[in-house]
Amino acid sequence: MFKVNENYLKLPGSYLFSTIGKKVNAFVQDNPEKKIIRLGIGDVTQPLAPAIIQAFHTAVDEMADAKTFRGYAPDLGYEFLRNAIRENDYIARGCQIEADEIFVSDGAKCDSGNIQEIFSQDNKIAVCDPVYPVYVDTNVMAGRTGTYDSRKETWSNIIYMPCTAENNFAPELPKETPDLIYLCFPNNPTGSTITKKQLQEWVDYANKVGAVIIYDAAYEAYISEEDVPHTIYECEGARTCAIELRSFSKNAGFTGVRLGFTVIPKELKAGEVSLHSLWARRHGTKYNGAPYIVQRAGEAVYSDAGKVQLKQQVDYYMNNAKYIYDGLKSAGYTVSGGVNAPYIWLKAPNKMTSWEFFDYLLEKANVVGTPGSGFGPSGETYFRLTAFGSYENTMEAMERIKKL
Amino acid sequence: MFKVNENYLKLPGSYLFSTIGKKVNAFVQDNPEKKIIRLGIGDVTQPLAPAIIQAFHTAVDEMADAKTFRGYAPDLGYEFLRNAIRENDYIARGCQIEADEIFVSDGAKCDSGNIQEIFSQDNKIAVCDPVYPVYVDTNVMAGRTGTYDSRKETWSNIIYMPCTAENNFAPELPKETPDLIYLCFPNNPTGSTITKKQLQEWVDYANKVGAVIIYDAAYEAYISEEDVPHTIYECEGARTCAIELRSFSKNAGFTGVRLGFTVIPKELKAGEVSLHSLWARRHGTKYNGAPYIVQRAGEAVYSDAGKVQLKQQVDYYMNNAKYIYDGLKSAGYTVSGGVNAPYIWLKAPNKMTSWEFFDYLLEKANVVGTPGSGFGPSGETYFRLTAFGSYENTMEAMERIKKL
Repeated sequence: MFKVNENYLKLPGSYLFSTIGKKVNAFVQDNPEKKIIRLGIGDVTQPLAPAIIQAFHTAVDEMADAKTFRGYAPDLGYEFLRNAIRENDYIARGCQIEADEIFVSDGAKCDSGNIQEIFSQDNKIAVCDPVYPVYVDTNVMAGRTGTYDSRKETWSNIIYMPCTAENNFAPELPKETPDLIYLCFPNNPTGSTITKKQLQEWVDYANKVGAVIIYDAAYEAYISEEDVPHTIYECEGARTCAIELRSFSKNAGFTGVRLGFTVIPKELKAGEVSLHSLWARRHGTKYNGAPYIVQRAGEAVYSDAGKVQLKQQVDYYMNNAKYIYDGLKSAGYTVSGGVNAPYIWLKAPNKMTSWEFFDYLLEKANVVGTPGSGFGPSGETYFRLTAFGSYENTMEAMERIKKL
Repeated sequence: MFKVNENYLKLPGSYLFSTIGKKVNAFVQDNPEKKIIRLGIGDVTQPLAPAIIQAFHTAVDEMADAKTFRGYAPDLGYEFLRNAIRENDYIARGCQIEADEIFVSDGAKCDSGNIQEIFSQDNKIAVCDPVYPVYVDTNVMAGRTGTYDSRKETWSNIIYMPCTAENNFAPELPKETPDLIYLCFPNNPTGSTITKKQLQEWVDYANKVGAVIIYDAAYEAYISEEDVPHTIYECEGARTCAIELRSFSKNAGFTGVRLGFTVIPKELKAGEVSLHSLWARRHGTKYNGAPYIVQRAGEAVYSDAGKVQLKQQVDYYMNNAKYIYDGLKSAGYTVSGGVNAPYIWLKAPNKMTSWEFFDYLLEKANVVGTPGSGFGPSGETYFRLTAFGSYENTMEAMERIKKL
């Protein structure tokens, strides 16, 4: 008789955003006349930029002609895209990353979920708390996290690094030594960042203790301050300890297009075994490449026209972020984030829990946000709003919230 | 100090098609003047059908307008696509499959590699021998296959079901009881099929012993004979024992577009736990949906125009298959497959091994095929040719082979 993966059964509840989706759907069903404004899930709303649309149409036409048709993509992604990434995201920032150290994929969510597979089951992970739930959940599914304490909402075999108002939402080096360290800056959900000097401390620490940093830089396009690193490879020594995850979802609106990439420098090794070779093997065996037309669209992100258009898109969302931030401040809320990230992190008022505030906001203002506790125990009493709505909806949501 | 997944290190060599790619590249470098014809990897060559191109352009234009832009897709895939699949692939064949039992994905390779994750590590798998290497390799990576015997090229903890000329390339029920049974019909690589009555025996067997059949039907569009089932759900009782994997790669030329789906009936359970809920959890946690534009292209596969155009495409490839089959027969080769599948399976002449024949064919005829031994030990001395080339190339390849 077959048996199921028991680790899956340890997961409490469903995936955070599925739960939110169900709650919102139920509310909509009961209140069909209400206009819901969604500032919850980090999904973009602006259409794809003209340069990207153009690249899509051209690539689709290539697929219509036997002479230019493309079947299976190269394992790691097309060279035209990997070269554009290398040039713009790394060489231009003074970071020596080779094109064959870049693995093109269908998005950073998949990569951040799958990357743990190339490590043995007895590695100990450290995560920021609160944090994007995929890091923890995928390690639970792999049986790496021990037992769940439903009262504390923590796993026995995870090192939690609290990010709270006290430490300015920046994690401190853990007391217990981890094997894998998940870092995400600009941070989801808090919208906080750390300086290059602070990140250098993490790189030095990882090299010292023999840990790997899995660095999620999905929001780097939103960095506005000078001293904040855009990639971990700006830090010295990162090539021997860091894997970087990147996305096209937030800088180019690809949430429904699906494109991302992972960088693994060839020096990153356990003894003689390079993580690069293991990830290449996983890509070759379990994945079949991002669609050609999507990789062409990704290339257009780095074109001159694409850069100008996407800068405007990021500015549009960051204008929303400022609008939310300032509005909440003026309404007396305790707020952070929103300067180098499209997320605003606020303290729920009147000692409400995160989910209480979620229900309150949904019922009273018909605005959907994300409960901070869904990202980890230290997120309790906090709440995330995203700047990815339209300007009009963002304005209206803020009017409603201010009136509460 | 972090540790790697040691199971990865047990894998012998690299992924089959990566090895072939490297060998061919080396030959091309040494012989730049030679015109290589590739009948190796099962990659299509005909351009996308006009109905699909049209659907792509329309969907791309939707992404250019904020009113019709789509971000994150629903976890399981868009309803328009799941309804079209249900209606055409199941209801039309008298199989009761619900739209919410269909999980849209970026291809059957990923699904066939990932599906083992929802089962516990101590399940025992049974595979046809020879077989598509992804089934075995992904179970190796999960630590489910025991130790490798490099002389026999087998794993200690896998039940191999030889498919040879003696049993007409149809597996027999295994003597030892498996927990998971991988079946692929029409078969890759042998191109063989089994009848509905034969498949019913497998379903009855699986229900009796409490095994799950993972049924890969990626090539069902190539079935030309009456008595061959297009889906395992044509068999009674399949809803309590079978998962079906399907692809758009071969019926619609989507190898570079990436779209597939997996069906898990809700009755398929271990005690109270439904595999449907586990796979839904995996999808929600580690995957972020197939691109909207690709799902619209998939919908066009089921349009009236799409059906007519794709029937022509399948006929085109099957004409190649007949051409290869007849040509090899007349040249004195022992041949099978090619009737319900785009693959021709031949015996290497003059007692050559599979790889010897691979090298011989590459050097003497500049034709690339796939060594049968790459699919499993019982594939040794066999060789696979695909019908996915252009007609002109297929003709030329056969002229060259006949001259050997």
